[in-house]
Amino acid sequence: MAGNSFGTIFKVTTFGESHGKAIGGIIDGCPSGVEIDLEAIQNELNRRKPGQSRIVTQRKEPDTVEFLSGIFEGKTTGTSIGFVIENTNQKSKDYGHIKDVYRPSHADYTYDQKYGNRDYRGGGRSSARETACRVVAGAVAKQFLTSIQFQAYVSSVGKIQLEETDAIDFAEIEKNPVRCPNAEKASEMETYIKQIRKEGDTVGGVVSCVIKNVPVGLGEPVFDKLHAQLGKAMLSINAVKGFEYGSGFEGAQMRGSEHNDHFNEDGSTKTNFSGGVQGGISNGMDIHFKVAFKPVATLMQKQETINSQGEKVEMEGKGRHDPCVVPRAVPIVEAMAALVIADFLLINRTTKA
Amino acid sequence: MAGNSFGTIFKVTTFGESHGKAIGGIIDGCPSGVEIDLEAIQNELNRRKPGQSRIVTQRKEPDTVEFLSGIFEGKTTGTSIGFVIENTNQKSKDYGHIKDVYRPSHADYTYDQKYGNRDYRGGGRSSARETACRVVAGAVAKQFLTSIQFQAYVSSVGKIQLEETDAIDFAEIEKNPVRCPNAEKASEMETYIKQIRKEGDTVGGVVSCVIKNVPVGLGEPVFDKLHAQLGKAMLSINAVKGFEYGSGFEGAQMRGSEHNDHFNEDGSTKTNFSGGVQGGISNGMDIHFKVAFKPVATLMQKQETINSQGEKVEMEGKGRHDPCVVPRAVPIVEAMAALVIADFLLINRTTKA
Amino acid sequence: MAGNSFGTIFKVTTFGESHGKAIGGIIDGCPSGVEIDLEAIQNELNRRKPGQSRIVTQRKEPDTVEFLSGIFEGKTTGTSIGFVIENTNQKSKDYGHIKDVYRPSHADYTYDQKYGNRDYRGGGRSSARETACRVVAGAVAKQFLTSIQFQAYVSSVGKIQLEETDAIDFAEIEKNPVRCPNAEKASEMETYIKQIRKEGDTVGGVVSCVIKNVPVGLGEPVFDKLHAQLGKAMLSINAVKGFEYGSGFEGAQMRGSEHNDHFNEDGSTKTNFSGGVQGGISNGMDIHFKVAFKPVATLMQKQETINSQGEKVEMEGKGRHDPCVVPRAVPIVEAMAALVIADFLLINRTTKA
Amino acid sequence: MAGNSFGTIFKVTTFGESHGKAIGGIIDGCPSGVEIDLEAIQNELNRRKPGQSRIVTQRKEPDTVEFLSGIFEGKTTGTSIGFVIENTNQKSKDYGHIKDVYRPSHADYTYDQKYGNRDYRGGGRSSARETACRVVAGAVAKQFLTSIQFQAYVSSVGKIQLEETDAIDFAEIEKNPVRCPNAEKASEMETYIKQIRKEGDTVGGVVSCVIKNVPVGLGEPVFDKLHAQLGKAMLSINAVKGFEYGSGFEGAQMRGSEHNDHFNEDGSTKTNFSGGVQGGISNGMDIHFKVAFKPVATLMQKQETINSQGEKVEMEGKGRHDPCVVPRAVPIVEAMAALVIADFLLINRTTKA
Repeated sequence: MAGNSFGTIFKVTTFGESHGKAIGGIIDGCPSGVEIDLEAIQNELNRRKPGQSRIVTQRKEPDTVEFLSGIFEGKTTGTSIGFVIENTNQKSKDYGHIKDVYRPSHADYTYDQKYGNRDYRGGGRSSARETACRVVAGAVAKQFLTSIQFQAYVSSVGKIQLEETDAIDFAEIEKNPVRCPNAEKASEMETYIKQIRKEGDTVGGVVSCVIKNVPVGLGEPVFDKLHAQLGKAMLSINAVKGFEYGSGFEGAQMRGSEHNDHFNEDGSTKTNFSGGVQGGISNGMDIHFKVAFKPVATLMQKQETINSQGEKVEMEGKGRHDPCVVPRAVPIVEAMAALVIADFLLINRTTKA
Repeated sequence: MAGNSFGTIFKVTTFGESHGKAIGGIIDGCPSGVEIDLEAIQNELNRRKPGQSRIVTQRKEPDTVEFLSGIFEGKTTGTSIGFVIENTNQKSKDYGHIKDVYRPSHADYTYDQKYGNRDYRGGGRSSARETACRVVAGAVAKQFLTSIQFQAYVSSVGKIQLEETDAIDFAEIEKNPVRCPNAEKASEMETYIKQIRKEGDTVGGVVSCVIKNVPVGLGEPVFDKLHAQLGKAMLSINAVKGFEYGSGFEGAQMRGSEHNDHFNEDGSTKTNFSGGVQGGISNGMDIHFKVAFKPVATLMQKQETINSQGEKVEMEGKGRHDPCVVPRAVPIVEAMAALVIADFLLINRTTKA
Repeated sequence: MAGNSFGTIFKVTTFGESHGKAIGGIIDGCPSGVEIDLEAIQNELNRRKPGQSRIVTQRKEPDTVEFLSGIFEGKTTGTSIGFVIENTNQKSKDYGHIKDVYRPSHADYTYDQKYGNRDYRGGGRSSARETACRVVAGAVAKQFLTSIQFQAYVSSVGKIQLEETDAIDFAEIEKNPVRCPNAEKASEMETYIKQIRKEGDTVGGVVSCVIKNVPVGLGEPVFDKLHAQLGKAMLSINAVKGFEYGSGFEGAQMRGSEHNDHFNEDGSTKTNFSGGVQGGISNGMDIHFKVAFKPVATLMQKQETINSQGEKVEMEGKGRHDPCVVPRAVPIVEAMAALVIADFLLINRTTKA
Repeated sequence: MAGNSFGTIFKVTTFGESHGKAIGGIIDGCPSGVEIDLEAIQNELNRRKPGQSRIVTQRKEPDTVEFLSGIFEGKTTGTSIGFVIENTNQKSKDYGHIKDVYRPSHADYTYDQKYGNRDYRGGGRSSARETACRVVAGAVAKQFLTSIQFQAYVSSVGKIQLEETDAIDFAEIEKNPVRCPNAEKASEMETYIKQIRKEGDTVGGVVSCVIKNVPVGLGEPVFDKLHAQLGKAMLSINAVKGFEYGSGFEGAQMRGSEHNDHFNEDGSTKTNFSGGVQGGISNGMDIHFKVAFKPVATLMQKQETINSQGEKVEMEGKGRHDPCVVPRAVPIVEAMAALVIADFLLINRTTKA
């Protein structure tokens, strides 16, 4: 029960360390008859890929996904879909210096304590490289869910954030390396990230996401509420510290008379503080939520830390790292959202006699 | 797959509608040999009970839990623990007016759309009455986890919030009806809630929680990270809109050089922006997190809404409702936290060869 | 993970010891809108009830099921269905003599070793009383599956067995206390069981089952094959030692040229050695299988055994026990079959895009 | 929920079609610190491999397993273990003739009905090639369970069977191509299989298995009884028609006074009709069970069948097939047994407080 699976019906299980031979996964429960556009899947992977722009890690990985089963003559067959992504550009020697050192705010210490040993190269299993498999699985889910739109974007980097007065244009998102839907803010954020990198530092940020055209009825009340599962999905992404949907933490400051979403006659609501979910079930309105990412823990600065003998040592980040993860997190957030929706869509088919 | 179960090894499954004969549940996977203090369990239920103070709903339910199995001569036997709580004070006629009406920001509309029918009395299964069963299960979990402390408290009501400069004294929490660890703030919050109720309105709030003395190593990396499961647990509680742990949303504004938690020689850390979790695994520091609750949707005011024919109708809340849920949410947050920790503690026993 | 749940989507979880206050369970995932005939459910329970005839245990339990949730105005609502059956006729003092004694071929020794303590009264959780909850859940499943027929019957008692030349008339089954579909064999079996009881002994037997009108496509290939899950379901019933379907163990002696089921033009097959399942998936033919039950371990004879100190002691069965379980096992086998089919029917809805 | 996973804590998920690029799987929940002997794993695969002897299919596949993750410096790390086995010798053109034809007693018809399309080459996912992944996972489980012995063997081929008077010598098993522990019977069986093959026919058989040195306490009573899960595991193997343990179907003919296993003072029993399991929990005695395999459905003879249009067609087996599956089934039975035991061993660690 090492928790490498996600989902109940549409279920993905992943494997792979940052510097092993390959990473990969198995998608089980994808319905048969889904037309698979391999290029579109690779495209999603490319959005997550290192080296794609000047503000992300310069590690060069082709990140090419190869499907091994479950697709025949361009369509899913209903059997399990196996896939692998080779690790081609591991510079393992970059990591010799951390073999015995616990990097601050990394998983080195907790893995060692929990498992007794670990593949220290590049963070091993705890590396965000693992999320590439999520993107593949999410891209398959998206092809099953062609009528639903998943759009994530960067809404803040450090203290620079989209304000309510800022125009939002989804067409802008993929035009700038930050993936911010406002060109001006995007440019400001980009400049800031470059500055941060120059200082050998890192910075956090927020990814927002909107899911449009979700059918009414998805989500299982009580423990498997739609937003509870979405929250778990997002919180399971590396570096995430918080999740809110609809009115979120601001909603906790409001009064009921302000916060209630009043119905139109067709069942839609005039406002959407609920974030598209009522009682844990989608109500047909846009689902919108925010995900907070902490600053990357690996700094290009000297830090004091300890080794596995509990001795003080000094270390400095090597390797190639992101100064800010949110631009590359955008496709990961969408992928996890697609996995949640695909799963609930299938479960929902079992609701009525 | 109606999602009425929570947990993998230490697993609780619940049933029951607000106005049915009884609510209850089954705890499966509780280890044998746990000494059970029934009074302590009833005490936890009493902390959640309606009618306990002047600022919560005045519905009077004794909420007495009866255990039917799994406990023998004062100890758990390792078999499944069944329990029921009778519903004794249902005023079903109070709810005739909503039989066919969709209350704004409630689950009436989504349940009807999803299931085709619903027990409309008191919200049926969507009522927060369901959380009483969580409190029972969590109280059993706490008795398995005697060396770990779970302490939740109210940190904000509307815009009134504990500031960093406010003294926090856990001994204060159960002394005031708000369950705020600062007597002065508690009094301010209480006055505000009374005012809100007088206006027939409601207000949201935030519950904070600290878990002390958690062993290192709990949580399964990748999808079942400790904080991801905690987040799901909290988001599954009625009215929750957001979850953050450690530095949370504020952490997204920070730099890595500020945010990293540096090690002491014993593996503890000098700061705790990580919130006791690194790489999804507990690191032995306090786990701390916040949960945002929206304002209760039922107002004692006239509201316009629609009925199941899509016709506009006017309604006004009847029955007895909380003006603010956070005081009663405190034991629920603790209970869900205890369930998460109990489950991961047991799973963790399977980690090493 | 004490294994008190069965099923993936249509899932039942049970609790209860033989001599506790009550036994019961929760059915989760039953679709909404199923019309519930409570009398029909009680009828199924009555078929399993002790004291129903001269050849079963004379323990008198009313075994009345009470539903606590999930049914509203005569229909399921899609929420979890809680139910309890009170234990009214526990003669716990009958069991004082086994408090510290391990009965041969019972679960006393293994429970004590596994859990460290046990509710010894009447076998506690290991008692077949637990199967009453399976019958309730299976009866609910049957009401969801009204177009499918589940018919189990006794095909052998000890060495007396239905031969291929014996006429089979399902209308006979409920007319005789053995539940054998051939009146003559039934009478022979009944006489034999009475004889066995007079000797203070017990005897094993076989229950056969036919499921008619199963749609094509149920069952998930690979690990969750239809017959694999059926087999697990049957093997989980107390006292079961074997399961075979279609040609079974006899099929292992056959040649392919004899064994292959040739198709008619409509996809049905001329023979049915496959037992209605090909590749783990139902093919629309009758599903038929057999379940072997060992003789009851409690004898009304002196037996030598050991106590928990490993000392030799002599014991003699007290209490009221069945000389042969198969007559009362018939409704249990049907119930478990219905649970398996209900679950796969729902899962199958998620198969195609 | 296409059922491609097996196990709860020690869990394997597999993928792959007979003629796709590769088959493979992910083992999740294998404890950290298990020393991995890759040669021993490959050895197990070789025992299952086609072409290993004159009485099995002559298809030549190297069946080399490659591990991609989860093992570091010779030991498991506790993270998920991914592995692949390339398909190197697919003669897909051999299968063009069945693209549109439903082979009798194969899964062609049911897959088409269930999924709407299928990879028809070599049976696709329904091919027993899938079991190679089970052997890999089981071989890893065996390395975790070094103190437990799993020994399966062929006990019957068609009507030729090991009698109680036949000597059983486990050292013989791997010395003959049938894998029968009696050299004389082995030779008789081998001759028979060759005869059957010459006739273009196939024949069924039985695999017996003994598990030695199992600790007391494995298995979860009620639905997840040790033998119920073992039964499911075995019934999920291609071509299996029946499962019995301990006294099995013969036990159903016995009296309680013959069948009860009486205790020695150390808790062991004088006889073992229980098959090492009492109340669903291992009692420390040998676990022994039998698995019935039907004759292979593919004959090298003309057979009449139908195509997907429901038209009668004639077909004859092509490709390379086994005349009798039991010799190659021996390592598969052991592998599945090891997976069941590994899982219950880990679950059992969570039993006591």
